[in-house]
Amino acid sequence: MERYVFGVDVGGTTVKLGLFRADGSRIRKWEIPTRTENHGDGVLADIREALLSEMRERKILPEQILGAGVGLPGPVTPDGVVNRCVNLGWGRRDVPAELSALLDGIPVRAGNDANVAALGEARFGAGSRYQSMVMITLGTGVGGGIILDGKIVPGSHGAAGEIGHLPIWDGAKTPCSCGNTGCLEQIGSATGLVRRARELLEETDLPSTLRSLGSFTAKDVMDRHGQGDAVADAVIAEAVDRLGCGMALVSCVVDPEVFVIGGGVSRAGEWLIRDLEQSFRRQAFHACRETGVVAASLGSEAGLWGAAALVLP
Amino acid sequence: MERYVFGVDVGGTTVKLGLFRADGSRIRKWEIPTRTENHGDGVLADIREALLSEMRERKILPEQILGAGVGLPGPVTPDGVVNRCVNLGWGRRDVPAELSALLDGIPVRAGNDANVAALGEARFGAGSRYQSMVMITLGTGVGGGIILDGKIVPGSHGAAGEIGHLPIWDGAKTPCSCGNTGCLEQIGSATGLVRRARELLEETDLPSTLRSLGSFTAKDVMDRHGQGDAVADAVIAEAVDRLGCGMALVSCVVDPEVFVIGGGVSRAGEWLIRDLEQSFRRQAFHACRETGVVAASLGSEAGLWGAAALVLP
Repeated sequence: MERYVFGVDVGGTTVKLGLFRADGSRIRKWEIPTRTENHGDGVLADIREALLSEMRERKILPEQILGAGVGLPGPVTPDGVVNRCVNLGWGRRDVPAELSALLDGIPVRAGNDANVAALGEARFGAGSRYQSMVMITLGTGVGGGIILDGKIVPGSHGAAGEIGHLPIWDGAKTPCSCGNTGCLEQIGSATGLVRRARELLEETDLPSTLRSLGSFTAKDVMDRHGQGDAVADAVIAEAVDRLGCGMALVSCVVDPEVFVIGGGVSRAGEWLIRDLEQSFRRQAFHACRETGVVAASLGSEAGLWGAAALVLP
Repeated sequence: MERYVFGVDVGGTTVKLGLFRADGSRIRKWEIPTRTENHGDGVLADIREALLSEMRERKILPEQILGAGVGLPGPVTPDGVVNRCVNLGWGRRDVPAELSALLDGIPVRAGNDANVAALGEARFGAGSRYQSMVMITLGTGVGGGIILDGKIVPGSHGAAGEIGHLPIWDGAKTPCSCGNTGCLEQIGSATGLVRRARELLEETDLPSTLRSLGSFTAKDVMDRHGQGDAVADAVIAEAVDRLGCGMALVSCVVDPEVFVIGGGVSRAGEWLIRDLEQSFRRQAFHACRETGVVAASLGSEAGLWGAAALVLP
């Protein structure tokens, strides 16, 4: 009897779904919209419907499903309970219990989306050759996930791997979305790069072609790196310095074998990985200086692969 | 047949030894000197002799010994290999293999002494009510140990829990013993407190009764806390601020249930634990603000208990 697992990656706009064989090979992936109205009350029911109809179509019996793994956009405790998912409108939800009940008892495991993406890279992507790995996701914010011995470190409050909120930037002039001031993601994220570039354009006379743009994105800043644009170079140097410091700190705590760098910002080019590696080595504790720094390889599918990995044998 | 384990805590001056029953109760503890001459070549032979003579005296057979756990003063990789123990004069040693061979095949496990002390507090001391714990040892240096699900996180280079080398103090004027500048232990350790107090006495006119002392210790600084001594108060405020920042950082990485504070400096009084807790809460990510901060309870015996815990069932 063939065995299967489902991977489910819940985002604020779409839910990505995947059907996998027990050996980890993927059979199909598809998406459904995330219905966030009514405090996201329909999200789990929609997932149920999508998974059950897939099973019906392929004549897969419930006993052939080893489990469904779910990545969620919020802090998830070690037992899979999420306390708040702002993007879904959710308060406290025991997703493994609720979704398993909706799926006639199929086992369900849940994890935070950044942690689950890290697990995906660890098992199927850039981290698959290593025993321990820390993934850093550079996107709208800065996310992270810690994988030791092939397992997610969730943290007692679901906050392990919250690398974006390392309080290590003394240049912040406004509070972070978390309420503190000086978080790494205030300079190291796409949002942070744009905000900091705007500040430098206003406060300094540094030459920059960004001045001629009405509005600009992180990509506009990144594209000007190393092209003689003083503002772009200053902002990126600051971000790279702080991200390298964050990696040095993480090494003193869990000392992973490798850092895997993912997220939209990380697609700027090979130079970013190289610069982060240099910045890390310069600031790292001597025993950790040889720790690897590599680019993620699964892109936006890391979360789906990782969700499956939550329940794969 | 009664079963036993040995705990061995190797320090630069003495080796502490303990015989324990398999239920974790301790039968005897004793000490032998650490023979560091000839690159510490005799250390393992001395441990062998001490353990075998204890077994002879009590008529304990090798098959009754479940194992010997060893704490070592240096970085220890996940498989128990130490690359360098400066205090013992050792280069690379595979302690589990070497000592097990000397003990007729009794299983041996080894860990870094700070990590092993953390394991002792986690299993038998202040951390025993918690699933995950980070111990911070405030002594000559600042040490640390990370315990998740009852197990030491060793780190891929044996450097996990090296909290003393978090690069988070921009007031450092000289390099740390590790070669970097700005490590937490440069302000948060006993050595750091004294060095910083001396700097402030030289560089400022702040009133302090430390000025009348020819030389002074960290205890002299701590004893003047809250007594109107401006230098002592400034140094301690700075140290507490940076230690709280270090704890906030650690929370963003592994998010433990509790911090256990140990080491000689931590015996300054209840106020230190309280001040560290406040400093931590002020700087912590919101999800981690309720993380506990408690004093260690096993004192200098934590390492011996932890060594036994390495091999207890």
